[in-house]
Amino acid sequence: MLLIKIGGGEKINIDYISQDIRTLIKEGRKVIIVHGASATRDKIAKRLNIQTRTITSPSGISSVYTDGDAIDVFLMAYAGLINKKIVANLQKHNVNAIGLSGVDGRLWEAKRKNSGYFIENEKTMFYKDNLTGRVDKINVSLLNLLLDNKYVPVICPPAISFENDIVNTDNDFATATMVRELKINEMVVLFEAPGILRDLNDKSSVIKKIKKSEIDEYMVYAQGRMKKKLLGTKKAFESDLFEKMYCGDGRVKHPIINVLNGKGTTIDYGY
Amino acid sequence: MLLIKIGGGEKINIDYISQDIRTLIKEGRKVIIVHGASATRDKIAKRLNIQTRTITSPSGISSVYTDGDAIDVFLMAYAGLINKKIVANLQKHNVNAIGLSGVDGRLWEAKRKNSGYFIENEKTMFYKDNLTGRVDKINVSLLNLLLDNKYVPVICPPAISFENDIVNTDNDFATATMVRELKINEMVVLFEAPGILRDLNDKSSVIKKIKKSEIDEYMVYAQGRMKKKLLGTKKAFESDLFEKMYCGDGRVKHPIINVLNGKGTTIDYGY
Repeated sequence: MLLIKIGGGEKINIDYISQDIRTLIKEGRKVIIVHGASATRDKIAKRLNIQTRTITSPSGISSVYTDGDAIDVFLMAYAGLINKKIVANLQKHNVNAIGLSGVDGRLWEAKRKNSGYFIENEKTMFYKDNLTGRVDKINVSLLNLLLDNKYVPVICPPAISFENDIVNTDNDFATATMVRELKINEMVVLFEAPGILRDLNDKSSVIKKIKKSEIDEYMVYAQGRMKKKLLGTKKAFESDLFEKMYCGDGRVKHPIINVLNGKGTTIDYGY
Repeated sequence: MLLIKIGGGEKINIDYISQDIRTLIKEGRKVIIVHGASATRDKIAKRLNIQTRTITSPSGISSVYTDGDAIDVFLMAYAGLINKKIVANLQKHNVNAIGLSGVDGRLWEAKRKNSGYFIENEKTMFYKDNLTGRVDKINVSLLNLLLDNKYVPVICPPAISFENDIVNTDNDFATATMVRELKINEMVVLFEAPGILRDLNDKSSVIKKIKKSEIDEYMVYAQGRMKKKLLGTKKAFESDLFEKMYCGDGRVKHPIINVLNGKGTTIDYGY
């Protein structure tokens, strides 16, 4: 089973991705897709005049502070607009896709973390009533039911908390939990760069190979969202059966086939 | 199997509806839900400054003219916001709901009707490039797969056209097609009125019983959306197995149990 994570940047080319997924399905591979929609979320929030408030944890990880309005924007962008457009595009390419949020059938159950500390202007502050959580449980039987019946699940946040709140959740952490629960051994991560870059301003500085044991060292190169991706990768490798993460460009032709053939960054045990 | 159609008015009480669905599920009934989100769609369109253009057919049926922007609002309101809020609310009441749009798994396939005539200011005009269609095919095996595995499908527009466009579609027509394809014999329709009213301004003028053979006569009482509902009812009765339509108030406690017990308007063969 191949887990494909599609970033939420606006230059990601869904049509190219769908073409490759069609090829994989024809070859008999089982595929699960998880996608973001951050660019669309930001755009809708702006048009609705809803402020996106980013908070940074003491360990330097940034996330979006989520109140009721932010959850609404989340639902509109992720579960509404982007999820269904990806599904329709896959259907156009003869892939029988089904879009689900983490709320549906309790697909992604999350431990809610409604309060904590964050850093703002170099000061430590306390937040509360945050509608976020970390995915800790996957409805594996639902996914297997769909896969066994030849459907391709297309999954997005939000998740549902164990207490039944709709919560924002980190996709990199959620996919790592899916790796563990579904015993996945390979994963593709597509974003708006040709791979993980040594120098963010130099597109030719793609790091071709990262050994699992060296992820921590590479964290120094990682900036912003890339940091979260590497943390997610580390978490995915906590599952004994996980072998390989392929990261690469979601904007170009044959994005998935490219990364599977080594174009981009491959993270593995390095044997 | 009971098909429950929930109107898109803002006073519809989802919490009360979920409680009743929980009761029905406990009694071993299979339930499918179809919902609207018109109030939310109108509100989002207004906030995004996207005009909702209503066109009226020569036969007096009004519908929303749908361009790409309107489809986006549709996806945000129906598949995004309202679908997932209903699903989360059902989950809170221990009902294992899964939200799906008509696009997912080609659940609702529609014949696109992209052009035609409409009436504006008493003039007949021609429209084209309309992203609408009528649901003509249901993915019955997907619904049975979910029902057999104890999930409660929560379905909303848009649909997918046979040519793979995302299209706006009339819920009353879509549910009638579901009645036919799923061989459903009973349906509940919940809206913001105590039943079908003889006089729209007199809440006590609920028509208790309508015979299937008399639907056409009652069309004279029907105004606006109610007219579409009666047309949908007529269409549902085209299926030989369909026996009863219960219409009533979605704002009050025990909305479903009420209408099943005759509170509201019951439409049947009148034997």
